[in-house]
Amino acid sequence: MSKPAPLSGFPEFLPAQRVVEQHVVTTLAETFELHGFASVETRAVEPLDQLLRKGDTSKEVYLLRRLQAGFDGGPDDAAKGIGLHFDLTVPFARYVLEHAGKLEFPFRRYQIQKVWRGERPQEGRFREFLQADIDIVGRDELAFHHDIEVTRVMLDALGKLDFLPGFRLQVNNRKLIQGFYLGLGADDVDEVMRLVDKLDKLSPEQVTGLLVDEAGLTTEQAEQCLALATIRAADDSFVDRVRALGVEHPLLDEGLDELAQLLRGTVGLATDTVRIEADLSIARGLDYYTGTVFETRLDGYESLGSICSGGRYDALASDGRTTYPGVGISLGVSRVLVPLVQRGVVTADRSVPSAVLVALADEDSRPDADDVATALRARGIPCEVAPSAAKFGKQIRHADRRGIPYVWFSTTDADGVTHEVKDIRTGNQVPADPATWEPPVEDLRPTIITTKE
Amino acid sequence: MSKPAPLSGFPEFLPAQRVVEQHVVTTLAETFELHGFASVETRAVEPLDQLLRKGDTSKEVYLLRRLQAGFDGGPDDAAKGIGLHFDLTVPFARYVLEHAGKLEFPFRRYQIQKVWRGERPQEGRFREFLQADIDIVGRDELAFHHDIEVTRVMLDALGKLDFLPGFRLQVNNRKLIQGFYLGLGADDVDEVMRLVDKLDKLSPEQVTGLLVDEAGLTTEQAEQCLALATIRAADDSFVDRVRALGVEHPLLDEGLDELAQLLRGTVGLATDTVRIEADLSIARGLDYYTGTVFETRLDGYESLGSICSGGRYDALASDGRTTYPGVGISLGVSRVLVPLVQRGVVTADRSVPSAVLVALADEDSRPDADDVATALRARGIPCEVAPSAAKFGKQIRHADRRGIPYVWFSTTDADGVTHEVKDIRTGNQVPADPATWEPPVEDLRPTIITTKE
Repeated sequence: MSKPAPLSGFPEFLPAQRVVEQHVVTTLAETFELHGFASVETRAVEPLDQLLRKGDTSKEVYLLRRLQAGFDGGPDDAAKGIGLHFDLTVPFARYVLEHAGKLEFPFRRYQIQKVWRGERPQEGRFREFLQADIDIVGRDELAFHHDIEVTRVMLDALGKLDFLPGFRLQVNNRKLIQGFYLGLGADDVDEVMRLVDKLDKLSPEQVTGLLVDEAGLTTEQAEQCLALATIRAADDSFVDRVRALGVEHPLLDEGLDELAQLLRGTVGLATDTVRIEADLSIARGLDYYTGTVFETRLDGYESLGSICSGGRYDALASDGRTTYPGVGISLGVSRVLVPLVQRGVVTADRSVPSAVLVALADEDSRPDADDVATALRARGIPCEVAPSAAKFGKQIRHADRRGIPYVWFSTTDADGVTHEVKDIRTGNQVPADPATWEPPVEDLRPTIITTKE
Repeated sequence: MSKPAPLSGFPEFLPAQRVVEQHVVTTLAETFELHGFASVETRAVEPLDQLLRKGDTSKEVYLLRRLQAGFDGGPDDAAKGIGLHFDLTVPFARYVLEHAGKLEFPFRRYQIQKVWRGERPQEGRFREFLQADIDIVGRDELAFHHDIEVTRVMLDALGKLDFLPGFRLQVNNRKLIQGFYLGLGADDVDEVMRLVDKLDKLSPEQVTGLLVDEAGLTTEQAEQCLALATIRAADDSFVDRVRALGVEHPLLDEGLDELAQLLRGTVGLATDTVRIEADLSIARGLDYYTGTVFETRLDGYESLGSICSGGRYDALASDGRTTYPGVGISLGVSRVLVPLVQRGVVTADRSVPSAVLVALADEDSRPDADDVATALRARGIPCEVAPSAAKFGKQIRHADRRGIPYVWFSTTDADGVTHEVKDIRTGNQVPADPATWEPPVEDLRPTIITTKE
């Protein structure tokens, strides 16, 4: 086998890079659990009819087929049609329906898993990538304060990833924009929303033209729509600016009230780098949200698109008798991490967990070295024993190449065994007892190193 | 959508069961890291030619195909052929070759990921399942003491899963059995090994017959092979018993020496429930091991087969110029866990991470309740605020149904706010300060509950 080439769209990390990913996943999981979210993992596959339920084939589903079809005369999954999940929302909705009788509602869950899409790979777009989703789902009803809750939880989580560049969490509300368009007298509200959503690709003049030509608005109505979409605010001051446009509708009132509540409930979490703002241009395109919608832009990485998106569904799932409304946000872990890691913005200071390399004077002393390592591990100190009794200089280089900060030396003479530990970064070598020595706590685990661009 | 049916062979856990899986994965990862093993994750897919490289199609590979083939005129992965990995060894061998220039050898890695096989589902056999692998791989050479090391690490890890029934880690050595067969004068050593491996399905008499008929052995030679296969020992006493059979060969000497070293290096880790023994019947069938081989049987769950297997490869990977020998063990996490969880042998005492439910006197006090929750979370106490200001009895039942042990009450009167916390298991209610109160450490996280059968 010659050297294999990477598969485009399937990123993989080297060990030191993987340390960063582990740090991110652990930080997210710990934060979500602090907020009472239970961990759920769903199988990687779903029936094809579920994956294509909304008629949206833009997700580029990967179909599965067994190489040996017809296997053993048994039923063949290929015939029934299964594919890899392309997000964590469709599987979660299915999980809720399948297990509803055994879940307690409102049900808070987080889910950190790989998803697959057969898209053309490009920056921030992969064929296999890691997502971290939080959702709260109710049975029959779900109070609006949960919209505020998921926002707070995700802001808390993102704020703990201190290597991240600054970011803006942008919120809007479908009721607000749909109520506004209804109040204006638009006939096809969804079409207006779809056209206004093109503002990130087209000029305001072009969108105005489309609104007139394709949605049948007057120029004045179209300009009102654009005026609404330009409103941004870091607090609830957007309400007065919308009111000043003179449009009225009960749904608009409801949307304004919800969005104002959301801003007031989260504004206290804003910092220099973690910003939250009402952005009345956000609509989340074709997704089936019915109230709050979220997008997130990373400072300096705007070309990645939204790294963290979501919103409120009136019916995340339904079995015909019972409807399960939900609200959630999904963080594109790979979308954020792969570019940062590849540009060297973030890495770890060692490629192995070991804080200590236990050096070997000769191969016969390996059992004694194992005893030293066992004593260190009993106190939670990751370590490894040198692979061979090479010259000490070579063993120190072995540690250095891996970023292991300490090398342990045991020497035996007439007076018994002497233990010493060397900090190879400083050269400082001191006597040490395997039963009591501990490194400074910051040396216990690999450290995440950031060079923010 | 009506209630979805489960997909056979794709097990999923309810939240309390998932707590057990998380506990297992965390315990394994922490133990592997204490021993200096670096975490690696590989993509879920490999080129089909790699998956089928050894001509072994028994793994029932799942092929991937994009639903929209010919997408955008770009290259189509379906044409090149990719499939889901069926183990973590093939992807790791590819990872080592692809990244060899950036890895430090000997390279210790652990990998805990799902794998997929289109097999007929049955107890302990799934189409999607979680594996936990450890391997040590060298460049050009890898000293034998690493065989002892991986054994010690996996014993350490399994020993920490205290809900596990007892188990036996069985070890053998291919050099020992191949050397024995060569010393006997067998012509086709692999064929003899393949036939002796049938002892778990056929009677000794049947295997003797096959050895005579298909491998061309004399009856006496065949009986010697069976005599070897009956030898079991918990220490290096097996050496004398093999010697007593009177067969001699240099490869046999090498195998005996390695296996004796392995037993001597691990016997100290044995306990009442964690047993290690030389079992000279173990061969690992068609897998391409060249020295040490491992299997593991769980007491009372022998029908699951081996839950933890592995061994030494002289060439885990090779690019033609450089060969990478390796030794490793793979734990079938799902194979062990799914039956134990489904039989209720192990579960968790709550279905949510929350240790505290912050009760609500009325909806207006939600911001104050959020402040209490934030103060608790700042000290690492997972908690959630009640979803609605229902009667306190209902809020307590809300906590009880989830297994949340504490409910927090804040009441405001003329003298200010009074905080109290109730342990709903005992009914004990005491004054508490959100800034300082802490639950007993054993209540901080869900507890794993075992009822060993």
